[in-house]
Amino acid sequence: MRTVYIIGVGMTKFGRFPESNVIELGRTAALNALRDAGINKKDIQVAYAGHARTGQLYNRECGVGQSILWELGISGIPISSVGNFCSSGSTALREAWMAVGTGMYDVAFAIGVEKLTGRAGKGRPLTSDGVELLTVMGFSPPIYFGNVATRHMADYGTTPEQCAMVAVKNRKNAGPNPRCQYKDPITIEEVLNSPVIVEPLTLLNCCPTTDGSAAAILCSKEVVSRYTSKPIEIAASALRSGPYKKCKDITTFGSDRMSALDAYETAGIGPEDIDFAEVHDCFTIAEIIHYEDFGFCKKGEGGRFVEEGMADMGGKLPVSPSGGLMSRGHPIGATGLAQVAEAVWQLRGVAENQVEGAKVAFTHCAGGFQDTIELGDVQSSAVTILKRGW
Amino acid sequence: MRTVYIIGVGMTKFGRFPESNVIELGRTAALNALRDAGINKKDIQVAYAGHARTGQLYNRECGVGQSILWELGISGIPISSVGNFCSSGSTALREAWMAVGTGMYDVAFAIGVEKLTGRAGKGRPLTSDGVELLTVMGFSPPIYFGNVATRHMADYGTTPEQCAMVAVKNRKNAGPNPRCQYKDPITIEEVLNSPVIVEPLTLLNCCPTTDGSAAAILCSKEVVSRYTSKPIEIAASALRSGPYKKCKDITTFGSDRMSALDAYETAGIGPEDIDFAEVHDCFTIAEIIHYEDFGFCKKGEGGRFVEEGMADMGGKLPVSPSGGLMSRGHPIGATGLAQVAEAVWQLRGVAENQVEGAKVAFTHCAGGFQDTIELGDVQSSAVTILKRGW
Repeated sequence: MRTVYIIGVGMTKFGRFPESNVIELGRTAALNALRDAGINKKDIQVAYAGHARTGQLYNRECGVGQSILWELGISGIPISSVGNFCSSGSTALREAWMAVGTGMYDVAFAIGVEKLTGRAGKGRPLTSDGVELLTVMGFSPPIYFGNVATRHMADYGTTPEQCAMVAVKNRKNAGPNPRCQYKDPITIEEVLNSPVIVEPLTLLNCCPTTDGSAAAILCSKEVVSRYTSKPIEIAASALRSGPYKKCKDITTFGSDRMSALDAYETAGIGPEDIDFAEVHDCFTIAEIIHYEDFGFCKKGEGGRFVEEGMADMGGKLPVSPSGGLMSRGHPIGATGLAQVAEAVWQLRGVAENQVEGAKVAFTHCAGGFQDTIELGDVQSSAVTILKRGW
Repeated sequence: MRTVYIIGVGMTKFGRFPESNVIELGRTAALNALRDAGINKKDIQVAYAGHARTGQLYNRECGVGQSILWELGISGIPISSVGNFCSSGSTALREAWMAVGTGMYDVAFAIGVEKLTGRAGKGRPLTSDGVELLTVMGFSPPIYFGNVATRHMADYGTTPEQCAMVAVKNRKNAGPNPRCQYKDPITIEEVLNSPVIVEPLTLLNCCPTTDGSAAAILCSKEVVSRYTSKPIEIAASALRSGPYKKCKDITTFGSDRMSALDAYETAGIGPEDIDFAEVHDCFTIAEIIHYEDFGFCKKGEGGRFVEEGMADMGGKLPVSPSGGLMSRGHPIGATGLAQVAEAVWQLRGVAENQVEGAKVAFTHCAGGFQDTIELGDVQSSAVTILKRGW
């Protein structure tokens, strides 16, 4: 397929906006992306909207993209909804990337949106993936990641303090980022002493409940010079769906490893070539495992990776310079595109918490637990590698 | 993009299966497609599941594809859910088509599934598109199509008898098709005398409530000879999302007209080259309007087109030889792929109600009404053109 670039990105501020709805959130992010690209809305030829579940709130499971774009005066083009748990936004980007890659379209819109406050059925526990059935049975993501953390600590000596360091680092990174839900610095003690959710995870080891939207505009190599001299190349957009049958270790995620390997291969790079990463730090232990699964460090050394400052700004490989899910928040279908937006600003050199000279970015989203949970894997994992295109 | 073929299709019987669930239905259709293609499941590289809403029933909005394929022993590959109202199945086919078209994948799975009996929230009126909000306000698809029929009758002299002829024709076509929900022949009088739903539409002018699934396996030109000497070429897979601002006439659908024009252009053919069509006969008046919007006849002549037998088996252009939505039933996300499956069997010359010598097929799905309904259009329209590939 042909080379595809990102020419514009946009976001809303992430946070709790109970008075808003998904259409308003999506419209704001999409409008920001149009303005960022400096593109006429008439140039948009195809669009994808990623959202895991909030369509229910508005009885528009399938029409979120149509409704958002209609409000911007965009209609008539092909518009589809895509869903893939926490990777829904990344999946929207990927479908837009392939649509342009085929040669059928030159300009595509990818929008991710979710609203987790004021949800329909709000008496039910919030889970990120619509697994209320399992929730009723006592299962929810914090319980899963609590087990994962316990096992990782037992097998590799990872400590609660090392987990807390992920939260502290990401909150520090969030400080200058006006789009983050939480920006005030926190200490290791505060993380350790916050209320226990599921042992050994305390509240500040868990990402918050968030509303928000993010969007990106993609275009082909053939037309990119019409819009910008500084495009961002999508060097890879990989997706895998677990579980892997051979993955019986809950301290590693087979689909994450596979999507990263796919992305490295497609982009022709390895982890040593990455200038920074935005990973799916839904829980602090998840980020530690991502270091290992993506080859940033060896298996079992994730705790030391963060403790030794490797993932800090100025470290060997800064992780989540935007603040990550822990601080920015995690409006499910929006997160993948928010990571991409933050990465684009980094690669342009205009991020609030800038990784100096960043040329190659790695972003990762993952989610979904179902009846095959005993195998220890996620139902969707998406890795995007972005490069400066100039 | 490169040429893509269909090498296998499968369906469940369509009907009311309150004891089943979407995963069981999808597994059956997918397994039938694998067997039809004679392909090893390990060859499947990417998959899309189209479903408009029934994920809610099982709290798996995003994981229907993963769950269906897991039961068949397929995991690890990229799997995404797509939604687009009544065109969800067609959208799954289209994404699979583009994924293979890019050159990234050689073999793709498209699955469509829906379960409309035993729905969650079953106290609410059934609509096809999740527009309960509008339903609460008094709007539902039968009301819309009742208005459309009234206007078409006033403007063009279309008669209730001509509408009834669509139902009679499609029921006659269904007779030999074991997958149809309703197969017994009906008369014009029976259609006219069935209970009024919304004037002038009686019960037998409306498609039924149905559960079912359909699937297709696609592959690239490069590998097709490994699987079959009689592949079916996807000559076009077009999608448009209304509304068109200039479309203020409710007796025509702008997005339908545009998706058909796109498909004709991509396939390099016109309506005169089509051997048969499977159209979205959700209501009899819809089929009559589709004749006009797709260029099978002139505007306003749809009623005469069916009355004069043009759409009959052996007529100028047989429409819905499978029985259509009216008789086969309309499990939303499954319908687009059911049309494709029926068309593939026609092009292979093995359909139960065979169009002799059929070489070119036209299939069409459409759906979705939202807050822009006053403009008279649908939110998604998908047209697929299939050709014998030998």
